[in-house]
Amino acid sequence: MSGRVASTTESTLIDDALAGNRRALAGLISVVERGGEPARSLAPRLHVTAPHAFTLGLTGAPGAGKSTLTDGLIGRARAGGASIAVVAVDPSSPFTGGAILGDRVRLREEHVADDAVYVRSLANRGHLGGLAQAVPAVVRVLDRTGWDWVIVETVGVGQAEVGIASQADTTLVVVNPGWGDEVQANKAGLLEVADILVVNKAERDGAAEAVRNLRGMLALAPKRDWTPPIVKTSALSGEGVDDLWLAIERHRAHLEASGELDRRRAERRLDELRQRVSHEVERAARLAEQSPELSALLQSVANGDTDPTTAAAKVVAVAARRLRKA
Amino acid sequence: MSGRVASTTESTLIDDALAGNRRALAGLISVVERGGEPARSLAPRLHVTAPHAFTLGLTGAPGAGKSTLTDGLIGRARAGGASIAVVAVDPSSPFTGGAILGDRVRLREEHVADDAVYVRSLANRGHLGGLAQAVPAVVRVLDRTGWDWVIVETVGVGQAEVGIASQADTTLVVVNPGWGDEVQANKAGLLEVADILVVNKAERDGAAEAVRNLRGMLALAPKRDWTPPIVKTSALSGEGVDDLWLAIERHRAHLEASGELDRRRAERRLDELRQRVSHEVERAARLAEQSPELSALLQSVANGDTDPTTAAAKVVAVAARRLRKA
Repeated sequence: MSGRVASTTESTLIDDALAGNRRALAGLISVVERGGEPARSLAPRLHVTAPHAFTLGLTGAPGAGKSTLTDGLIGRARAGGASIAVVAVDPSSPFTGGAILGDRVRLREEHVADDAVYVRSLANRGHLGGLAQAVPAVVRVLDRTGWDWVIVETVGVGQAEVGIASQADTTLVVVNPGWGDEVQANKAGLLEVADILVVNKAERDGAAEAVRNLRGMLALAPKRDWTPPIVKTSALSGEGVDDLWLAIERHRAHLEASGELDRRRAERRLDELRQRVSHEVERAARLAEQSPELSALLQSVANGDTDPTTAAAKVVAVAARRLRKA
Repeated sequence: MSGRVASTTESTLIDDALAGNRRALAGLISVVERGGEPARSLAPRLHVTAPHAFTLGLTGAPGAGKSTLTDGLIGRARAGGASIAVVAVDPSSPFTGGAILGDRVRLREEHVADDAVYVRSLANRGHLGGLAQAVPAVVRVLDRTGWDWVIVETVGVGQAEVGIASQADTTLVVVNPGWGDEVQANKAGLLEVADILVVNKAERDGAAEAVRNLRGMLALAPKRDWTPPIVKTSALSGEGVDDLWLAIERHRAHLEASGELDRRRAERRLDELRQRVSHEVERAARLAEQSPELSALLQSVANGDTDPTTAAAKVVAVAARRLRKA
């Protein structure tokens, strides 16, 4: 496996994408997103030893205004002359073409035509596990192809989605006035990953109360080096987006000065490794269970003739053989 | 591994437990709960080809009155001359010694002294994954040692806990009047696993509304052979427990007549097998990551020198070697 060389087409994709060809970049991301052997064989050439891109994770409930905020952040990055790419893993995001859950604002016309802005949605297809694995690889492609900033936008409704956004250098959690009253099972999980808290739609009633609530919850959290600032924004009017950008730059400076940036990135690389290993061994286990040589054993377990513990040892042995051959 | 024979002490435990010795039964369950090699070597002798025990899963929010209901069900089983064992996987259950979350009622005195009643709590210790695996094995021990009914009580707050209770022949979901207003993230998950819905504390305001709500939710669910009945109980006064017992017997008759009981049990055995296989391969993967021969590789991934995809292939190879040796 490790001896295989990427096919000519895939190799060309990398060359063209590195040269700035957008269609090649899109194709390359598709290969990485699909995973499997083609993605594996490209991995060494896509590897980034010293990351250049700074990544922002952006998560929050559907309709919280994440996409409008993203648009605002794109504007700030561009105003500073930086390039910026967005990966949307959010079925409610207009970037994914969905717009089913409330968000209606799209990328501003000026950004659509801008060569230094790239937006890519990843299809969920119902299996977030695979996607969680694809996202760091996609981010690496964007880093490798020279983007200065990468935003990963996910809808913060489940642990998996929040987990994806938390795999960033700086994670922004977006809430709205009144969010405290909603059924928000994942509230604690959201706060835990936040480096910066954003109260968006701050022009609405209850914004001050939302800030107070968040402050109260933060006071209960264990002390950390960095206390997440709470930034009020009104993404539609653009108010507060400058403050948010300032908070991002402050957090970035904190990460760099404290050495935390390197620690986070090292931890993320190891997480990615662990996830890949888990994925591979689980895949071998599932394939072993489906192998014809074990069908009689499984039938005998289903019937109650063989106990599951003893049978498990035999399935594991077949899985191990498959893994060694891989 | 499969060639190993259970040690004399463990073998004696089985003989004594089969002979009706309660201390031996308790010891046997502890061995099975702890898992690992001792549990594995006992598995063939503990296997049950044709289950005798009928299992009830009982789940619901903390304070819903699950333990009081369990006490009522014990009374009904005993009134019919049957023996009954309870496995409590519930940090809020008085059976686990916790009673931290609202339940205060304990096993009635008459049941404590009854040889045909056995109550066992399983310690959670924060890792439900291991517990989810231990429960079917513990239930098998109780089946093997001749109990007629086994109740598995779990607090229905998370997917894992609800999953444990759903691994039963008949699953009861307990709610209270007003439950619809509470933050119940897991509502859909609870309804999905319910064979029988219990509105406990039905003497309180809102019981009729709770029944209406449940009926409305059931109407939205996909059609099944069996429509879960909704039973109102007032566990403290004992009202409704007879109706509940009747509903259980009806569901049992339905399962047996339709062949669904055999299908469920076959599916459960295969689930148990899959869980064990996953557990073994994941364990090998984690051990491989910690092996000294790979520490330089992991360091190099953390530093960013080696890409995680390529490193994953090497870790998987070591895991495979370990699995084959096991």
